[in-house]
Amino acid sequence: MINIGLIGFGTVGTGVVRLLTEQREMLSRRLGTDLVLKKVADLEPDRPRPVTLDRDRLTTRAADILDDPEIDIVVELMGGCDAAREYILASIERGKHVVTANKALLAHHGNDLLAAAAAKQVEIAFEASVCGGIPIILALRQGLAANRIEELFGILNGTANYILTQMSQQGDPFAQALRQAQEKGFAEADPTLDVEGVDTAHKLAILMSLAYGARLDLESIAVEGISKLDPLDLQFAGEFGYCLKLLAITRDDGYRIEARVHPTLIPRDHMLANVHGAMNAVHVTGNAAGPILLYGQGAGMMPTASAVVSDILDVARNLRRGAPCRIPALGCPDALSTARLIKPMNDLVTNYYFRFAALDRPGVLSQVSGILGKYDISIAAVIQKGREVAGTVPIVMITHEAREADAQQAMREIDQLPVVSPPAVFYRIEDPQLHSAQI
Amino acid sequence: MINIGLIGFGTVGTGVVRLLTEQREMLSRRLGTDLVLKKVADLEPDRPRPVTLDRDRLTTRAADILDDPEIDIVVELMGGCDAAREYILASIERGKHVVTANKALLAHHGNDLLAAAAAKQVEIAFEASVCGGIPIILALRQGLAANRIEELFGILNGTANYILTQMSQQGDPFAQALRQAQEKGFAEADPTLDVEGVDTAHKLAILMSLAYGARLDLESIAVEGISKLDPLDLQFAGEFGYCLKLLAITRDDGYRIEARVHPTLIPRDHMLANVHGAMNAVHVTGNAAGPILLYGQGAGMMPTASAVVSDILDVARNLRRGAPCRIPALGCPDALSTARLIKPMNDLVTNYYFRFAALDRPGVLSQVSGILGKYDISIAAVIQKGREVAGTVPIVMITHEAREADAQQAMREIDQLPVVSPPAVFYRIEDPQLHSAQI
Repeated sequence: MINIGLIGFGTVGTGVVRLLTEQREMLSRRLGTDLVLKKVADLEPDRPRPVTLDRDRLTTRAADILDDPEIDIVVELMGGCDAAREYILASIERGKHVVTANKALLAHHGNDLLAAAAAKQVEIAFEASVCGGIPIILALRQGLAANRIEELFGILNGTANYILTQMSQQGDPFAQALRQAQEKGFAEADPTLDVEGVDTAHKLAILMSLAYGARLDLESIAVEGISKLDPLDLQFAGEFGYCLKLLAITRDDGYRIEARVHPTLIPRDHMLANVHGAMNAVHVTGNAAGPILLYGQGAGMMPTASAVVSDILDVARNLRRGAPCRIPALGCPDALSTARLIKPMNDLVTNYYFRFAALDRPGVLSQVSGILGKYDISIAAVIQKGREVAGTVPIVMITHEAREADAQQAMREIDQLPVVSPPAVFYRIEDPQLHSAQI
Repeated sequence: MINIGLIGFGTVGTGVVRLLTEQREMLSRRLGTDLVLKKVADLEPDRPRPVTLDRDRLTTRAADILDDPEIDIVVELMGGCDAAREYILASIERGKHVVTANKALLAHHGNDLLAAAAAKQVEIAFEASVCGGIPIILALRQGLAANRIEELFGILNGTANYILTQMSQQGDPFAQALRQAQEKGFAEADPTLDVEGVDTAHKLAILMSLAYGARLDLESIAVEGISKLDPLDLQFAGEFGYCLKLLAITRDDGYRIEARVHPTLIPRDHMLANVHGAMNAVHVTGNAAGPILLYGQGAGMMPTASAVVSDILDVARNLRRGAPCRIPALGCPDALSTARLIKPMNDLVTNYYFRFAALDRPGVLSQVSGILGKYDISIAAVIQKGREVAGTVPIVMITHEAREADAQQAMREIDQLPVVSPPAVFYRIEDPQLHSAQI
């Protein structure tokens, strides 16, 4: 018999209670012994919930779980950083294994928590922290363990993807799409973490550590959100055969690592372009396995509970066989002492989408392309539309590969031209097929 | 140090040697000890291969591996059933763990092999047997272990999918698409196993066992291939918004299991509809996780080697921790003594695509729909084209849900009508959204 204590009886906690109750027989069958949910701690034990739980298993005090010597596994689903961190450290201290879905906590304090857990030989399992029910952590830690991970692209935030899908399919402006997402329960009242890319960065930090077997390094990730997106750019992107997604991107050139979160143009026939609404997906390329896509529901009560309970089962299987920490949390025993060099954004080389608002004067295109030429930025395709937008005519360009520092500097100079109305808009493109003739 | 013996130095074997050599440092780092490829047995040791291996590690005798007490893990990559089975049983007998990619062997003899391995407490790992580098076995055995699997659809054979992609995108007839697949190395000289659905059925047998925690049951799977497909039907399917894929399908209604492999119409916006060429994908729905898609290269030297080496690493991790067979091969300790009831094809209830060749006489549609009505088959959509095909005019229909036995009997009666030219063509549809108004 393995005893579980749950801290946090909110949405995901409710799903976990439901799964442990409804699937009890199947889980016991798989494990070969019973998984018992012994106690649940929550500050609002009597709030109505769609599952029933004996009142005597509910407590308002996390200490009732932490101090119970019979509890083997503590499941932390309260969210937030301060108290969650304290309870996880207390669990580790008492030799209890931990299962958590708390990506913010891991991204900010994961190195310390994982080091404390390794020192005590207890597990911290966190499949539920990235992409809900999609077993991406398992895939990186075990399934692709024989690979050097070359690159990874992720749609890791369902809220942002829902908003982008609305903006792109309906032509809605950001604010309206956000309102709809809030009405449908896909976005919170304060959507900052989701729409500004912060939550995506938390998850990318975790995936990068697993992909490369290295310390968590949230600070090195460059982050840009979607709140300033104009539906016009989604439309123009479409005319070039692209769609726009908020992507987490990491790539290993063998020396340095790219680590960035930003709105990105991808070809319409890319598997990630078909990830609509609140769905999540990760496209990861291993040097041996080649490209792999994992797709599914990245959030919600039951998908996240599925990941939490699969972690509980995995830890329990290790306990049954006397093999806790069978696999180190980040895939390599020395990951926490391994740091990878991050490529600064200025050194990034990629393709760009530019949009300039041209005033109705002669010679605009030649002046703009003159500046681009000066910075070694060559144009792969250009659209100049007759239709006026706010008194100007948009010029939209797709470039060949250029250096980010050059692209930024060129934008600044172009914004100074009297023939354009600043600011220039620019997005990065991920398109391995982009090699059409140079203009 | 963990010693490995490899039997079979063909394409995948070469990939495994390459991966174990090139990634040796990374693998040792992950495992915490060295993985050593001690011996490789092959009947043609001196055949030129794109990897180098010391001549003294090569042997023509499998016994040199089986009888070596220092070898911990035997990797069987010779294929075929008889000798492979014998070597795997000999490995088990000697307490050696086994990694194999041999789906035909597992589908036909897996129950006996797994029982022998369980009795000896040695592992048989087989991630490479289904979908190459895609970690689908890991996902079913661990990632989705908290779920009841409700349904699973798979594109499990790259050759068949390549041929279908050619037929659908170029309008090529089957024979021509097959020839192209052979020229490109995607199809073998004798393509029977691939195009008749047999290989897909082998893989479905393995996935079903994992999904339901039950014995392998290849015989219960209904199998139909793609060799009789007319490109005309791919075209008509497209006009209804469908594309046609060779799918492995299993579904659990809580009482019985559907188990079938056949050409299937799926909506064009389904994730599986975007799986082109030789790629593989599995779409699996867990009751908690919801729908999950795993997509990638299902065959080839390095993708398959990726799966083999990830299995080697997993077994080695268990050995290091003294926890062999940490998870039973089919996910549940009692899987080999568990049989699930299979739903006979006659009891299947699904939507159908029918095509009839109507002679140029009045009243065809009324006679055909009269027979369909008699068998409770109602029509959701119909296309009657003016264009003649071989002296007849095609009538194409999409039906509401109907019983397979009724559909088959209706086809037989319609084939007797003097106004149609037999045989009627029919395919099954998987489309949860199919509820347009009845005609």
